[in-house]
Amino acid sequence: MRTQVGIVGAGPAGLLLSHLLARAGIDSVVLEARSRTYVERRIRAGVLEHPTVELLREVGVGARMDAEGLPHEGISLRFDGMDHRIDFADLVGKGIVVYGQQEVVKDLIAARLDDGATIEFGVSGVHLNGVEGSTPSITYTDAAGVARELRCDVIAGCDGFHGVSRHAFPAGALTAFDREYPFGWLGVLAKAAPTHAELVYSANERGFALYSMRSPEVTRLYLQVPSDTNAATWSDAAIWDELNLRLAAEGFTLNEGPFLERPSVTGMRSVVFEPMRHGRLFLAGDAAHIVPPTGAKGMNLAIADVQVLADALTGFFATGSETGLDEYSATCLRRVWRAEHFSWWMTSMLHRFGEGDAAGDPFGRRLQLSQLRYTVSSRAASTSLAENYVGLPYGAC
Amino acid sequence: MRTQVGIVGAGPAGLLLSHLLARAGIDSVVLEARSRTYVERRIRAGVLEHPTVELLREVGVGARMDAEGLPHEGISLRFDGMDHRIDFADLVGKGIVVYGQQEVVKDLIAARLDDGATIEFGVSGVHLNGVEGSTPSITYTDAAGVARELRCDVIAGCDGFHGVSRHAFPAGALTAFDREYPFGWLGVLAKAAPTHAELVYSANERGFALYSMRSPEVTRLYLQVPSDTNAATWSDAAIWDELNLRLAAEGFTLNEGPFLERPSVTGMRSVVFEPMRHGRLFLAGDAAHIVPPTGAKGMNLAIADVQVLADALTGFFATGSETGLDEYSATCLRRVWRAEHFSWWMTSMLHRFGEGDAAGDPFGRRLQLSQLRYTVSSRAASTSLAENYVGLPYGAC
Repeated sequence: MRTQVGIVGAGPAGLLLSHLLARAGIDSVVLEARSRTYVERRIRAGVLEHPTVELLREVGVGARMDAEGLPHEGISLRFDGMDHRIDFADLVGKGIVVYGQQEVVKDLIAARLDDGATIEFGVSGVHLNGVEGSTPSITYTDAAGVARELRCDVIAGCDGFHGVSRHAFPAGALTAFDREYPFGWLGVLAKAAPTHAELVYSANERGFALYSMRSPEVTRLYLQVPSDTNAATWSDAAIWDELNLRLAAEGFTLNEGPFLERPSVTGMRSVVFEPMRHGRLFLAGDAAHIVPPTGAKGMNLAIADVQVLADALTGFFATGSETGLDEYSATCLRRVWRAEHFSWWMTSMLHRFGEGDAAGDPFGRRLQLSQLRYTVSSRAASTSLAENYVGLPYGAC
Repeated sequence: MRTQVGIVGAGPAGLLLSHLLARAGIDSVVLEARSRTYVERRIRAGVLEHPTVELLREVGVGARMDAEGLPHEGISLRFDGMDHRIDFADLVGKGIVVYGQQEVVKDLIAARLDDGATIEFGVSGVHLNGVEGSTPSITYTDAAGVARELRCDVIAGCDGFHGVSRHAFPAGALTAFDREYPFGWLGVLAKAAPTHAELVYSANERGFALYSMRSPEVTRLYLQVPSDTNAATWSDAAIWDELNLRLAAEGFTLNEGPFLERPSVTGMRSVVFEPMRHGRLFLAGDAAHIVPPTGAKGMNLAIADVQVLADALTGFFATGSETGLDEYSATCLRRVWRAEHFSWWMTSMLHRFGEGDAAGDPFGRRLQLSQLRYTVSSRAASTSLAENYVGLPYGAC
């Protein structure tokens, strides 16, 4: 099989890239290790920043997002027992849309298949070959167990943090920048109507908690827990008790309901691999960088990457110019580092750190509180949070 | 001897407090361990924030500051080999005035003595007595060697970080919040005309450097050095070489000249003691808190403290109401923690940290650079720096 761009991974990055390329008349094939059912049900991120929303609309995959997504014009920081709203609409004139990553994936798969595109699910043994030359290929075993080769001009590695694409970089070609946090998030998805219209980031003395929602019937809740926590040691009742304690505020009620999936713990980590390109291989999304979820930037960065990559590939296939390809990594990394910084900043401000950590000693704790109070009382500081949260315009970082 | 307010320390805090109280008809006596010559020549801070400038003018001690001080409408952050100006005038409509702390001290001493006030220089053996009762006193030995007692209603401890006043708090009454940095500033004062009109904060790969000035003839320069550095191990030539390397930028020339005092190393530390009041003893300025000099906040905080204290004492002596006195510590500490946070933030963004420090590992270094680039490219972020640097209005923190 032959295509122009071989795409590894049918997450938001790979699927949107295929869609954007098709609009530019460029042929691609998407290879995905999991089944279609699996990727369409995988619960991940849920906040679309403004440039993401605009891009999805602009390229014709925003209809269901606009119909079913929940537009939000702000978030609240909850501390000192009360809510402090960051009014995005007032501060920056933009908002976000709460719409699950799996819904974006469904919409993109539907659009690609409608368009007659090839997405191969359930492939295995994916191997990238010849990425330093001009005729790379991907060898793999298809869902029927048949060995295949996909020959292409360019490979896009959109297969996530644990994917194989990054390993096609030769030893020493990648530098990892890494920060681990001593905590994770215990996340639950509950069949319970949200009682608050927007996300609440609670910087509680007992630890951070996040109140969010996925639909008018489903609440998504998180608790900061030590990173080595086994979710199974938390009973449902203990989770609700702790959520009630950490989210307590005047006039706030937490609706409880059955969990729609088993609670699980997500580690909190920041990682960036540089550069994002080697020869004809381009990494995008989690394959190249991950952020702690506090800033809601993971999926949005993946989408920003492929927007840059689609532009670069459009130039390359139209004229043979490699300028866009050469600039791809540096262009993406500016936005990546902005998001890494913002995510680190939100994480540092909102979580409890241990006494042994500079951010958790009594001085560090006082700094957190002063920063929280300043962030909600200064228009400049609120605007800085807001513009990062709703997403800086593409090209502005 | 008897007065209403016994003030320990003839720095900016003690002297300005005495001046403000006199304007409200309240009698005070200032006791100072050093000589008048010493305190009038002691080189310390040099940046007056906007509320400080306004206050000094308003209370009639701003004439020489207005005549000889250097008004600045911005600073530059220098990194990536170029300057990025933070335009205070444009961003917040306010500026700062470069005017040495010793000049403020001279002006205040002159004003107090003109007014017939008592300032006792060269006292020793200062001891605070009975601060928990309503008739405290200060015992000391005067410059002539005579033992004295100053009886008063209230004592203001304005005697700096190493002063004795804080030690009159009983054991356990004070909590210290402390952060040490693994570096200090090697500072030099050179007889050399400034070649740049504003302060330059250089976040250089070799370490931080600060370019500033005290007059049209005198440049004040600092180099980040390890905190255990003995200044005597740096030759004059080595200092100029390093300054030239760290301050290098397109179109920038560093004028060299003889040093006006021996180079010295200032440690970088953040400390806050809470509360700032015990009984009839009130701490103000460095006696209660110190900041690293990066945010230029030390003297300004001292002045903000005594402005609050003078108001509280005015209410107390006029009506007997202790409301202002009761609120003194919490009111001051809000501004203190804002300044501590800002100073920590500037320090963290601009200095090189060691590889063993989270802020100095390769990830932390990339965060610094992203933060610097964001701070100078986002109007919201620039405004946040500017409003803190020029000083938030009194009462706004």
